[in-house]
Amino acid sequence: MQFDVFGIENPLIDLLVQVPEEFLERMELKKNHMMLIDERRHQFLLDQLEDRKVRAEPGGSCANTLLGIAQLGGRSAYCGKVGHDANGQAYIDKLEEAGVTSFIRADGSRTGSTVILVTPDAARTMNTFLGASQELSAADIPLAALKASRLLYITGYLWDTEGQQEAATLALRTAVGEGIHVAMSLSDPYCVRRHKEAFLDILDRYVDLVFANREEALELTGTDSTHAAMLALRRWCGGAAITLGGSGAFVTRGDEHAYLDPFPVKPVDTTGAGDAFAAGFLYGVTTGASLFQCGRLGSYLASRVIVQTGPRLQGDVRAALAPVLDDPRP
Amino acid sequence: MQFDVFGIENPLIDLLVQVPEEFLERMELKKNHMMLIDERRHQFLLDQLEDRKVRAEPGGSCANTLLGIAQLGGRSAYCGKVGHDANGQAYIDKLEEAGVTSFIRADGSRTGSTVILVTPDAARTMNTFLGASQELSAADIPLAALKASRLLYITGYLWDTEGQQEAATLALRTAVGEGIHVAMSLSDPYCVRRHKEAFLDILDRYVDLVFANREEALELTGTDSTHAAMLALRRWCGGAAITLGGSGAFVTRGDEHAYLDPFPVKPVDTTGAGDAFAAGFLYGVTTGASLFQCGRLGSYLASRVIVQTGPRLQGDVRAALAPVLDDPRP
Repeated sequence: MQFDVFGIENPLIDLLVQVPEEFLERMELKKNHMMLIDERRHQFLLDQLEDRKVRAEPGGSCANTLLGIAQLGGRSAYCGKVGHDANGQAYIDKLEEAGVTSFIRADGSRTGSTVILVTPDAARTMNTFLGASQELSAADIPLAALKASRLLYITGYLWDTEGQQEAATLALRTAVGEGIHVAMSLSDPYCVRRHKEAFLDILDRYVDLVFANREEALELTGTDSTHAAMLALRRWCGGAAITLGGSGAFVTRGDEHAYLDPFPVKPVDTTGAGDAFAAGFLYGVTTGASLFQCGRLGSYLASRVIVQTGPRLQGDVRAALAPVLDDPRP
Repeated sequence: MQFDVFGIENPLIDLLVQVPEEFLERMELKKNHMMLIDERRHQFLLDQLEDRKVRAEPGGSCANTLLGIAQLGGRSAYCGKVGHDANGQAYIDKLEEAGVTSFIRADGSRTGSTVILVTPDAARTMNTFLGASQELSAADIPLAALKASRLLYITGYLWDTEGQQEAATLALRTAVGEGIHVAMSLSDPYCVRRHKEAFLDILDRYVDLVFANREEALELTGTDSTHAAMLALRRWCGGAAITLGGSGAFVTRGDEHAYLDPFPVKPVDTTGAGDAFAAGFLYGVTTGASLFQCGRLGSYLASRVIVQTGPRLQGDVRAALAPVLDDPRP
């Protein structure tokens, strides 16, 4: 196999800018929130920031997970759509520099991006313009590369346009036809609300392992407890990992179950906690780790990510995860 | 069967007294802590409190659980030893008034008691004199009543004297011989540290279901995760309920597992949270409830107890638990 994890989603270049508090006020933005914006507003924000230093990083939920897997030593590949522009090229270059093989198509309109306004208190106020990412279609999926992967990872965000849905469905059918393990993240509770019926169908037909936080799991399954949600998810797709915020996580696969104690930390910025959990967990899956060890890897990576700013751990991630990597559990 | 749950432990009369902060300072007491005291210190404290109003209530970890079961409508019975004195008689009278059948022997030395100093901030500073409770012996166990019970419930506190150990061991042997289900609470982490080897032996030989908080479970099993502790406990005794403080609980029995979400409350006084969890859970067991429903009953009763002061819920407990009792889950 050429790749451990093949991911598909929205490549959104993160544009990080330090701003004073008063900039948020002037732009009428709610601190710490994520807001979807259109191209005009995106350009307007960039114009206002013209004289400030902008740091560009490859972003988006699935890319964060694939980058985490690469940092751990896994071979990950990413497919999505960017524009034929400087941001698109920067996205691909930085993704590959970070060790993720790019199957990104650069023939869309303007590259999607998240303008992340970082105030002096380390709060992150996010403005997401989806742009070209929403133009992904079935023709963009590199089937040979997918077939050379051990695991397909998709997210619920792909259900927001018909073209992306078709692309995801082709990938899912191909994976299942080839006996490739399929994992899916439910993305966010609003996304679940928008696409509940479609997600239930997909989980039942194609997915082996679903990632959800508690809120997403309850929303999708129409239940009021983690336990009932877990039973429902397991019936549909055999495996589920439900993150419980500060209370830990609960994971299940076949007849196995494991509760993961939370690692005791004081969160600074929880952006990307779920993406990091999925990265650690999936890395564990591709290395044949036990269910509990997969959960430990996910929980520990997430606990390291939330005590710093931004969705990804900086520096030597294998060294940071040594306490768990070097002490595997059954 | 005459009784649903037959419990054995230390009957300690709770003597609740409202005191100002300065009383704790004058007595050199650490607020919110439990301290074991001898008879002389016990008498000294009572002498200092002479002019204050004292409220007497039947107390002790196991009695709290049996009282909770009675409040829920279960038939519980209690065995232990008190002195032939006013506190001993008050203990028995109030226990029976509250619906628990007493098999308490009143032929010991001075009745054990906990002087609970309640400061204006609702903090409870506890001074426990074990007294006659530690004089329980095998001859005190009413075997006919035990044999007429569905479930035997004991706690780790019984291992602190040889006589109590012999009494508990006779009860355990009798129960197992009669096919009576046995549940045990590990009591507290220090108790586990004192009697680790004995507890492991007892769990293996006699116990079907063990109650522990996370700290006790890790201490007993020598593990560093709830998951590993659960695997070890299940190997020894088939069933385990591990409470996780504000993170919920994890319960297992045979091939079944369930994570219990915490009920979102702001604790006022966590005294008796574990006793209440055991009461709800055991009531569930005796009514044939599912593992998850037993856990819900325990969690919900505990969540109600910790938002008020003291180890037991006041008023109509069945009405308070109606949201869970009237909505049973598989």
